[in-house]
Amino acid sequence: MKVTSKQIAELCGVTRGTVDRALNNRPGINEATREKIMKVAGELGYRPHFLAQSLVKGQTKTLGIVLFDMYNRIFSQLFHAFEAEARRHGYFVYLVLTNKDKALEIEYLNNLLDRKVDGIAMSPVNMGPTLDSFLKESGVPVVTFTNRVSAKVPFVWIDDKQAMKTAVHHIASKGYQRILYVSPPLRYKGKSNIYVPEQRYKGFIEACTELPDISYTVITDYDYLESLLRLIAESDEKPAILCSSDIYALDVMRFLKVNDIRIPEQAGVMGFDNIDILHYVDPALTTIDFHVDEIGRRAAEQLIASIQGRDIPRRTHVGYAIIERDSL
Amino acid sequence: MKVTSKQIAELCGVTRGTVDRALNNRPGINEATREKIMKVAGELGYRPHFLAQSLVKGQTKTLGIVLFDMYNRIFSQLFHAFEAEARRHGYFVYLVLTNKDKALEIEYLNNLLDRKVDGIAMSPVNMGPTLDSFLKESGVPVVTFTNRVSAKVPFVWIDDKQAMKTAVHHIASKGYQRILYVSPPLRYKGKSNIYVPEQRYKGFIEACTELPDISYTVITDYDYLESLLRLIAESDEKPAILCSSDIYALDVMRFLKVNDIRIPEQAGVMGFDNIDILHYVDPALTTIDFHVDEIGRRAAEQLIASIQGRDIPRRTHVGYAIIERDSL
Repeated sequence: MKVTSKQIAELCGVTRGTVDRALNNRPGINEATREKIMKVAGELGYRPHFLAQSLVKGQTKTLGIVLFDMYNRIFSQLFHAFEAEARRHGYFVYLVLTNKDKALEIEYLNNLLDRKVDGIAMSPVNMGPTLDSFLKESGVPVVTFTNRVSAKVPFVWIDDKQAMKTAVHHIASKGYQRILYVSPPLRYKGKSNIYVPEQRYKGFIEACTELPDISYTVITDYDYLESLLRLIAESDEKPAILCSSDIYALDVMRFLKVNDIRIPEQAGVMGFDNIDILHYVDPALTTIDFHVDEIGRRAAEQLIASIQGRDIPRRTHVGYAIIERDSL
Repeated sequence: MKVTSKQIAELCGVTRGTVDRALNNRPGINEATREKIMKVAGELGYRPHFLAQSLVKGQTKTLGIVLFDMYNRIFSQLFHAFEAEARRHGYFVYLVLTNKDKALEIEYLNNLLDRKVDGIAMSPVNMGPTLDSFLKESGVPVVTFTNRVSAKVPFVWIDDKQAMKTAVHHIASKGYQRILYVSPPLRYKGKSNIYVPEQRYKGFIEACTELPDISYTVITDYDYLESLLRLIAESDEKPAILCSSDIYALDVMRFLKVNDIRIPEQAGVMGFDNIDILHYVDPALTTIDFHVDEIGRRAAEQLIASIQGRDIPRRTHVGYAIIERDSL
């Protein structure tokens, strides 16, 4: 049963033009008539009514969240927390997946804007002035996480650089003098927004500069596991393998086991992220935990505050902590 | 810069009423004028233009996917595959999360319908005639997976009952005569749509009926780990612990390790789903694999076929296979 504006006009005893004015929130109609029309349209299940009502209220009570990946557990956790907080404020959340495709990211942003979402939270793969001005022109509040866009776009995350420095100092304090730093995403430098791996890398280098006794190698190869095996064999010094994310640390641990290299007796391993599946892995992985639920919650909270016209910080850092387990 | 229909009217040399007719796809306007107006509106970046154009074309090229959970890896994998297939056909995908909340599921469905998605794929928590008639009245093609709604709503999944029967026969073939069946979701029977655990349970019971030498206990407690420990201690017969999903099997394995019960020497464990994180777990878990990527892909493919007016099957079963590893 498709309801037309003509039927609404007949039921309300007004012209179709008046119905259009009400549904499209244009002037030239008194408030009582508008309300009557909206009520009848609603009762009839007139579908465009939702959009019309949204225009009346000036908002759709819908947020978009743009993610580049749902494989890494971090994003499932963050999304669950974001959604829960948004719901608490009466917002619906639409998630879209860009799969690290820069063109698709722009298409999805346009699509969400066309759908008149009230605000967008995103983990961007585009970068620099192009995305910056696109977001500014959109006129819609935006909050970013993981990869930062610029000083102009609010960003909720952790201080990756400082956290990675802390990790290196922790490794040094355990007596290691040799670190193999594994960060495959670094090879996308300049091609994609890799703010997070770059910040972690900066922290790693800064810490190594502060610790002259540490020798290190940075591994960014696609075949990083093979490189790792070669590097381990090159020296008698027991290495600590520091991975820029737990997902790499899990592959490293599995690979070392297959190659009969005992953890931590022959090589230490440390991750970053404290993803929830670590719970099931032996030996328990030493890593850096950050409150990803808090990031999801605060991103939603700040986005909604921004929609409501309040000022929000350009940068919010949540806490992190080393989780010492059995792999170092 | 906000573009109004007045500006479009001026640029096109027509009345605002004509612009409204064009944008809202109403009659009383010739095709050349309509096209001119749509073109100008498009060039000016007139936002409602997207919706207007969608109405002209009768479709928005957007699909909704309704999931009740993103923690279980199965859903991340399925979503990635669904999205990729939809993109291949030029569709955008909006994911919404119901968090197993039945009222929220209906709210999100309404929200997606208001947004005029062309079709909806869903993993339902509502059930029975209520959801059945809601979906029918929506007038939008729907495909379901995981939990089935009714014979009327297309369903893409595996034959859970047959798969679980196969699992039981496999366990029996390994010499086990005692099975502890762990399926915590069964306690929601009647309260929520738990089609998947119910089908698996039916398969379990049918197989046990076929195998009179097997003794079994079904555990559905919230504290199933404690119950398990008690049951293991009750008999000298080495049990096979068969879990209705890998996520429970992972918790079981971890718990047995903590309690110094060796797998498979003192207790066998088998899961179901073959989630990708099993890759990292010791001992490697014997489980049932089903092609969740294929389910995602075929759900998208069938949904799009249905949107295009083609008939699609009411039920599609993809394949499954026992993955024999080290835990039995």
